[in-house]
Amino acid sequence: MQPSVFQGDIAYFPTIDRIPFEGPGSDNPLAFKAYNPGQVVGDKTMAEHLRFAACYWHTFHGTGADPFGPGTRAYVWNQHADPMDAARARLDAAFEFFTKLGVPFYCFHDRDLAPAGSSVAESEHNLQVLTDLAKARQQATGMKLLWGTANMFSDPRYMNGAATNPDLLVVSHAAAQVKAALEATVALDGENYVFWGGREGYACLLNTNTQRELEHFARFLTMARDYGRSIGFNGVFLIEPKPMEPMFHQYDFDAQTVIGFLRHHDLDRDFKLNIEANHATLAGHTFAHELQMCVDAGMLGSIDANRGNAQNGWDTDQFPTDMNDCIAAMQVVLAQGGLGRGGLNFDAKLRRESTDLDDLFIAHIGAMDAFARALVIADKLNNDSVLSKHKAARYSSFDTALGRDFAAGKLSLADLRDHAAKEGEPTAQSGKQELIENRVNDLVFGG
Amino acid sequence: MQPSVFQGDIAYFPTIDRIPFEGPGSDNPLAFKAYNPGQVVGDKTMAEHLRFAACYWHTFHGTGADPFGPGTRAYVWNQHADPMDAARARLDAAFEFFTKLGVPFYCFHDRDLAPAGSSVAESEHNLQVLTDLAKARQQATGMKLLWGTANMFSDPRYMNGAATNPDLLVVSHAAAQVKAALEATVALDGENYVFWGGREGYACLLNTNTQRELEHFARFLTMARDYGRSIGFNGVFLIEPKPMEPMFHQYDFDAQTVIGFLRHHDLDRDFKLNIEANHATLAGHTFAHELQMCVDAGMLGSIDANRGNAQNGWDTDQFPTDMNDCIAAMQVVLAQGGLGRGGLNFDAKLRRESTDLDDLFIAHIGAMDAFARALVIADKLNNDSVLSKHKAARYSSFDTALGRDFAAGKLSLADLRDHAAKEGEPTAQSGKQELIENRVNDLVFGG
Amino acid sequence: MQPSVFQGDIAYFPTIDRIPFEGPGSDNPLAFKAYNPGQVVGDKTMAEHLRFAACYWHTFHGTGADPFGPGTRAYVWNQHADPMDAARARLDAAFEFFTKLGVPFYCFHDRDLAPAGSSVAESEHNLQVLTDLAKARQQATGMKLLWGTANMFSDPRYMNGAATNPDLLVVSHAAAQVKAALEATVALDGENYVFWGGREGYACLLNTNTQRELEHFARFLTMARDYGRSIGFNGVFLIEPKPMEPMFHQYDFDAQTVIGFLRHHDLDRDFKLNIEANHATLAGHTFAHELQMCVDAGMLGSIDANRGNAQNGWDTDQFPTDMNDCIAAMQVVLAQGGLGRGGLNFDAKLRRESTDLDDLFIAHIGAMDAFARALVIADKLNNDSVLSKHKAARYSSFDTALGRDFAAGKLSLADLRDHAAKEGEPTAQSGKQELIENRVNDLVFGG
Amino acid sequence: MQPSVFQGDIAYFPTIDRIPFEGPGSDNPLAFKAYNPGQVVGDKTMAEHLRFAACYWHTFHGTGADPFGPGTRAYVWNQHADPMDAARARLDAAFEFFTKLGVPFYCFHDRDLAPAGSSVAESEHNLQVLTDLAKARQQATGMKLLWGTANMFSDPRYMNGAATNPDLLVVSHAAAQVKAALEATVALDGENYVFWGGREGYACLLNTNTQRELEHFARFLTMARDYGRSIGFNGVFLIEPKPMEPMFHQYDFDAQTVIGFLRHHDLDRDFKLNIEANHATLAGHTFAHELQMCVDAGMLGSIDANRGNAQNGWDTDQFPTDMNDCIAAMQVVLAQGGLGRGGLNFDAKLRRESTDLDDLFIAHIGAMDAFARALVIADKLNNDSVLSKHKAARYSSFDTALGRDFAAGKLSLADLRDHAAKEGEPTAQSGKQELIENRVNDLVFGG
Repeated sequence: MQPSVFQGDIAYFPTIDRIPFEGPGSDNPLAFKAYNPGQVVGDKTMAEHLRFAACYWHTFHGTGADPFGPGTRAYVWNQHADPMDAARARLDAAFEFFTKLGVPFYCFHDRDLAPAGSSVAESEHNLQVLTDLAKARQQATGMKLLWGTANMFSDPRYMNGAATNPDLLVVSHAAAQVKAALEATVALDGENYVFWGGREGYACLLNTNTQRELEHFARFLTMARDYGRSIGFNGVFLIEPKPMEPMFHQYDFDAQTVIGFLRHHDLDRDFKLNIEANHATLAGHTFAHELQMCVDAGMLGSIDANRGNAQNGWDTDQFPTDMNDCIAAMQVVLAQGGLGRGGLNFDAKLRRESTDLDDLFIAHIGAMDAFARALVIADKLNNDSVLSKHKAARYSSFDTALGRDFAAGKLSLADLRDHAAKEGEPTAQSGKQELIENRVNDLVFGG
Repeated sequence: MQPSVFQGDIAYFPTIDRIPFEGPGSDNPLAFKAYNPGQVVGDKTMAEHLRFAACYWHTFHGTGADPFGPGTRAYVWNQHADPMDAARARLDAAFEFFTKLGVPFYCFHDRDLAPAGSSVAESEHNLQVLTDLAKARQQATGMKLLWGTANMFSDPRYMNGAATNPDLLVVSHAAAQVKAALEATVALDGENYVFWGGREGYACLLNTNTQRELEHFARFLTMARDYGRSIGFNGVFLIEPKPMEPMFHQYDFDAQTVIGFLRHHDLDRDFKLNIEANHATLAGHTFAHELQMCVDAGMLGSIDANRGNAQNGWDTDQFPTDMNDCIAAMQVVLAQGGLGRGGLNFDAKLRRESTDLDDLFIAHIGAMDAFARALVIADKLNNDSVLSKHKAARYSSFDTALGRDFAAGKLSLADLRDHAAKEGEPTAQSGKQELIENRVNDLVFGG
Repeated sequence: MQPSVFQGDIAYFPTIDRIPFEGPGSDNPLAFKAYNPGQVVGDKTMAEHLRFAACYWHTFHGTGADPFGPGTRAYVWNQHADPMDAARARLDAAFEFFTKLGVPFYCFHDRDLAPAGSSVAESEHNLQVLTDLAKARQQATGMKLLWGTANMFSDPRYMNGAATNPDLLVVSHAAAQVKAALEATVALDGENYVFWGGREGYACLLNTNTQRELEHFARFLTMARDYGRSIGFNGVFLIEPKPMEPMFHQYDFDAQTVIGFLRHHDLDRDFKLNIEANHATLAGHTFAHELQMCVDAGMLGSIDANRGNAQNGWDTDQFPTDMNDCIAAMQVVLAQGGLGRGGLNFDAKLRRESTDLDDLFIAHIGAMDAFARALVIADKLNNDSVLSKHKAARYSSFDTALGRDFAAGKLSLADLRDHAAKEGEPTAQSGKQELIENRVNDLVFGG
Repeated sequence: MQPSVFQGDIAYFPTIDRIPFEGPGSDNPLAFKAYNPGQVVGDKTMAEHLRFAACYWHTFHGTGADPFGPGTRAYVWNQHADPMDAARARLDAAFEFFTKLGVPFYCFHDRDLAPAGSSVAESEHNLQVLTDLAKARQQATGMKLLWGTANMFSDPRYMNGAATNPDLLVVSHAAAQVKAALEATVALDGENYVFWGGREGYACLLNTNTQRELEHFARFLTMARDYGRSIGFNGVFLIEPKPMEPMFHQYDFDAQTVIGFLRHHDLDRDFKLNIEANHATLAGHTFAHELQMCVDAGMLGSIDANRGNAQNGWDTDQFPTDMNDCIAAMQVVLAQGGLGRGGLNFDAKLRRESTDLDDLFIAHIGAMDAFARALVIADKLNNDSVLSKHKAARYSSFDTALGRDFAAGKLSLADLRDHAAKEGEPTAQSGKQELIENRVNDLVFGG
């Protein structure tokens, strides 16, 4: 069931073999200590629960550049004069990496896979060529595509937005990219298709017609949905919220904003959300909160697993190793019965100072071990009767006849008023937050 | 048209007369330099545009207490052993203040006006008594009620929420308060009724069923709407978003969250939003952004005019004197044709260190002058052809036949793709943000 | 060595006995699972390492009030008409609590222990009476005073600051309080004396002479130091940084600000720092960072152990249960050889919604278990050769002859330039941050 | 006195002439409305007060790239295969721009002026060649160098820091750069030399020896100071604080941190601070606060004038058009008697969406007009007797005999205590913050 290791003409990671599971106690940085794909947790294996994906952009295009300096890593697969040669080399490197690491899924933007050409047609052709190659690699290895997407934020033409650009011609180029990216995703049996609205937003309210732009956005998504369904895409469309960066304000601010938008435009039957941890915290939420809001709406699609940090106010896209966040996230996911067709995609990048070739593997291993541990712990927490009884007891008054009538809309404001007048002052119910936090620590650390 | 000055048995502000308009150049801290109620700006007078309201809570109950110390101001009207005596004194002080200041509107919570009693019935009775008195004061002076509301966050019983409390009996007490507050609002011809969900949210996700609580919230609002309509309230119901504080997370996080919630629960025909400046900034938005989101949805109801500051991460509720914010807000308001039945309520409190009796007047005068200046400037900016032409020109491609077809949903993704393929690369359109910012400064400071 | 349980005339916690250590696996919320005072970690027992202290203010005065509502907990010891009666009752409750919980230390402000009187002399007398009582309780039980301090922020007179107040008479009242509080601290054998400059700062730069105020502050601290030494105080004076709240800006912003101030005013031989976790994060730092800056300067005195959260921008003073923070803090503490005369004081308050009497115990138990676990884990991490070798290897070039010459100031800029010219481009050294983070998780969670 | 317009072989801004002053009311975006260099304000001309400088990096190297996409502006001077040819073209473009704009000063990093070579010697040679050219351009035009600096953060070798790098060889390369940059600064009669410690900080505390790194930092600055003085640099050395970005934590966090560091290492006689507005706000301060802290210490050297915004948590480096900030900054500057050898350098970049060639001019014009207006307004505010009398009156008790004794250190804690006991409770002095804020608005907007 694990994808078989791929090796192209050149060995890009010659010193590294398939990453083994060595279990707790191992000192080997290139081995899993917790992620054991076939190990059963609850009703499924770890691999089935976690559905890990590696990403193409940070991992194979990311060289460590930041606004204050260029990249620090010169990967062999990027050393080609012809961008199509580089694209083919990168594909081989990527499949070698995926299969040695042992992630069953990957994700890409159109421009990650194949370079833009000098015309719409040439760009489409380039993507077609690489899609064919990727399909062959998938068949050879058993790797699967978690989702595809189109990069509609890097090209200078998108500086003022893509689907929300004030120029119809720019919107049309965005449409061309989405059309081709949908076709590639279908060709590669992608399970989802993602929209991250990187520059869908504004920098300056005084030159922006937000209402018109948001109507265009809905129109664009509707077109994309219709086209996708027309070519046989039966996966899930996903919107990934982010509040800001690169734009001053981005329209897909957070989960509730996106859920409201999708419902208002009748897109909520085809679209769900892809929640990224670091985007959640930039919006002033916890990762778990954003997941919970999606679950409550029946719209949790997939996860971009990474982390930020509380001190820095931009997207640091660190590999997810903060166990508090991983555990809380997995509690929400397990409580809704799992990720369905979604997965845990590592939209994370090496620190600029991490320049060894094996750092790519090490970073992913740590993240996978973190979520494997979090899965086991979350399962334990969700099955803990101390925690579950306390939560259920708080709401027990709504399980009475009167409570059910209230929830069913059979009571009026005056009925409730009379109930209050008759019963008098309620007894204080302690929230017991400290008890809950202690219980969690006891279960996590207590042996 | 200005309310006439009220003077009760005791003169609470004996050294202060009706605040005059003295115009620019006046050195008198107790005079208006910009707010001249009858001055026409565009199609209306300043008073008609701005519809200022003073608030009952900060202004007559606020003594400067903060989490680190008790109040610094001992107001005479609070020096009564019997809380009903204090309530009557406070009413007189309030109307003396309102009418000397020259605000046409005021706003209150039920508990601001009248103290809670030891039973539902006694609380209702107390409120009834004070409502009758307030009605008499309104009739005597011409003052109007901008909105009423119920305080469902101070009483310890609401520590875990009011409408979203896990205990039905607490929800019922909330219902009793809303019922009585609606009745008071109707009796006083209030133009709006507000819900600020102070403790509707959570402190700890692990003891909270967010989905159930949000369903209860919608149910509660529906009941309140139905009851209000049944007793003749034909004003606007308002929700006031705030992202946090006192709760870790509050459900009415920001405008988009609330708009989505209201639409989802079919409440958007009766409810609009009351946007508070400092709540906007706590949510990571600008004040103008939150107003614009409401306008785009046709749901801007009213405004709580105050300000925070960018250095402190809690609601500082300062009087609004930041002209950047006031101008940007008034630009959005004027562009939508005004505030309708809403107004500008000063949900603002004196600094704890402002202990002179005249500081109450001074603070309101500065805020009213700030918005009067902002009104004049915003009118000038909105009528500036440099700014308006640039904005319109950006979207001109959507005014073509193809653009109109796009907006009308007559084009497919493939149609747009073909347009892009045919037309090739778009010409870059500079956003000209610096030019816009310069133009604004030139118009504000230049002439 | 554990203080013996104190029981006054009234049993304030009648259903709770001395909290036992039951070890991992216990389901008893009123038992320790990790904190086993006599257990040896490294070279000392847990009790010797951790030197836990409970605080008088949040724990015995805190009723859950916040800016949006009054307290939710009505403690029996506060139900006295005469404030001195309440003070005596509170003392008994406090010592019953301390000794049942098993913390060896406590901390107080003057006004926590005894109420202010109507004159300086009466306030001094009140404090003297309670100090005598507290001394008797200490002798009876073996409890010790970690530190005393004076509350110079709650009384309205301090609204514009205490030592930095623009009015000399207010400064003089602050001096009176510090004098008496120092005397109480000496009488009770306090090991430290703390200054938290709650309102030493400014709200408005335009009415403030910051230079003059800071000079007054240094003068005041010098006087206090001199007086303390004159009456036999041979403990450590401590400054506790906080960047803001209640003030817009507070002078003791963070560790580096305070260290620089103390050095500039020749106070660094008598003063060290008391670092509070939540103040660190409000200043944009991590808890561990602030501790490290103090350690580097030889000025880490003591710790106020609590936590904030990254979503809320004010001091939430939660009980410390975030293991990431606790572990990182203990790593810094252990690396410097321990806390010396300082300790871990729980400057933390129950959530407003935690209304059961046992919540006070539960919260402290969880915090103590958290730090006990963190101690064990930090000891393991600090002794891990993978981590220590990597860190040492990074700096090995400074252990060469040339490196030593550099550090000793024997090289010129030109010497270094010539070294660079001769040796050419350095080899990149990966920071290996991901490897380090994985190693930490492996050691913490791995078995 | 204005530099004369420079025109090299190619006209890089052919459609733009010297920017004229047209005064208020002008609609010309390419004219000054407020900045009139020879206009006298107080005791000096605008040009003498403001000492504007344009920067080489953002303005001539910045193409609009951000972490999410490449540049949007393709400047002619960058279109050269040989980097030295580009450097020469850029110099001509820069001097054409400076002199047409009418800024008297400029600033550069070594690598802005000349590209790095493949060896230390070649880099030195490149810089020498361009320095000679720049000197000729200065002589031809009358332009002056406000400050020089070395870019020690972009090259990958500096990923772990420059002066604080754990590898001595990297520190040596930093030394080579500083040596050459100091020589260039001296050759060009630079008035200051700046250190911005872009990567002097840490990403991960567990692989960092902060104490050792900070000692190396002081050692390095001492060497640089000594070398600079030895070659005849008699200007001011400047440190520019920034709290974070690119690093997780940067050592030069804010003004107080840097002031403390410089004093501790006896560098405060040669070094002052260069305060950047956006760095101030990232550190949780206002721009004016950071300036004030420097002024109080006698260490305000120069200013990087730009702005951030309160919604985005990274350095947005916008052109300074927020009048609140500009006015508050100029109030502090005027109160200390001006900028001395420092100036107002526009460390600001065009928005990525600003792609027209004239946007470079427009942005600088708006910033210069903003500070010219701020200068006039600040002068008015600083001379306003309402504001100055209120501030002085607050501190009057320290102008009494007792107050002077206090400040002189002649009183003991017991003396102050006795004063408090004798005088009793002080009278509350209102801070009058609202009155002050109103007065400021009245003066700014009132006519």
